[in-house]
Amino acid sequence: MREHDVYMDEAVREARLGRDEGGIPIGSVLVRDGVIIGRGHNRRVQLKDPVLHAEIDCLRNAGRIGVYIDCVLYSTLMPCYLCAGAVVQFRIPVVVVGESETFPGAEEFLLSKGVRVIDLYRADCRDLLQEFIRIHPEIWDEDIGELERK
Amino acid sequence: MREHDVYMDEAVREARLGRDEGGIPIGSVLVRDGVIIGRGHNRRVQLKDPVLHAEIDCLRNAGRIGVYIDCVLYSTLMPCYLCAGAVVQFRIPVVVVGESETFPGAEEFLLSKGVRVIDLYRADCRDLLQEFIRIHPEIWDEDIGELERK
Repeated sequence: MREHDVYMDEAVREARLGRDEGGIPIGSVLVRDGVIIGRGHNRRVQLKDPVLHAEIDCLRNAGRIGVYIDCVLYSTLMPCYLCAGAVVQFRIPVVVVGESETFPGAEEFLLSKGVRVIDLYRADCRDLLQEFIRIHPEIWDEDIGELERK
Repeated sequence: MREHDVYMDEAVREARLGRDEGGIPIGSVLVRDGVIIGRGHNRRVQLKDPVLHAEIDCLRNAGRIGVYIDCVLYSTLMPCYLCAGAVVQFRIPVVVVGESETFPGAEEFLLSKGVRVIDLYRADCRDLLQEFIRIHPEIWDEDIGELERK
């Protein structure tokens, strides 16, 4: 579990970068053979891009690696359906999350497709995001598709 | 059904743009109240971006519209899990596809989440993509996560 925490620390670093840019503090790293080959954070607010969730940003930054069978995707938060869909489509076998208390995400969908999901229950991931949501509830609601039409 | 074909013609136009750029010929448009508010095509090859499937490109180009409840997403091909995940997460209620013969995609997942899926069974969509796959099978395999590690 300690190994997972080392990589999750890097995902948290990404989440903090996002927060410091005024964005939603969720971060992600992609690891292969113990090496971080991609990293990113949610930049929907910064780039006005609705699909740029942390995991999507991370996968983009990893580039066209083609095969993900020996990769582990780390995210400070349980992935939503968009990001879980990427995991399933790219056949990433393991997802490690910092927390799922703030948002249960698409865990059941991931499990139903045979993806191994490991929850580290980290307070730092939870507190970082929940503090943002307290200040910007409308941005968070938009991010998870809960916004009513204005 | 004729109305659907008018919008699908625009998705096909996008797919042809992609083909002419040397990319995978799959196109998509997002329609709200009869107006195309986003359009795009698969640009994975062009931009070396593994997540830039046609539907993702289209949703990016539509911008942060926030609410999708009265939108219809058109795609020349049945969406994969990544793009279907976006549909489910953003709560897009209807997806119209040009074909599902070349790739069955994540139709079952969409249906299980209450998304209405309409297949137009269009030969032009099928032929455009199948011609590309005959010439570039390895690019197609990478796109759908079937590539073995080299």
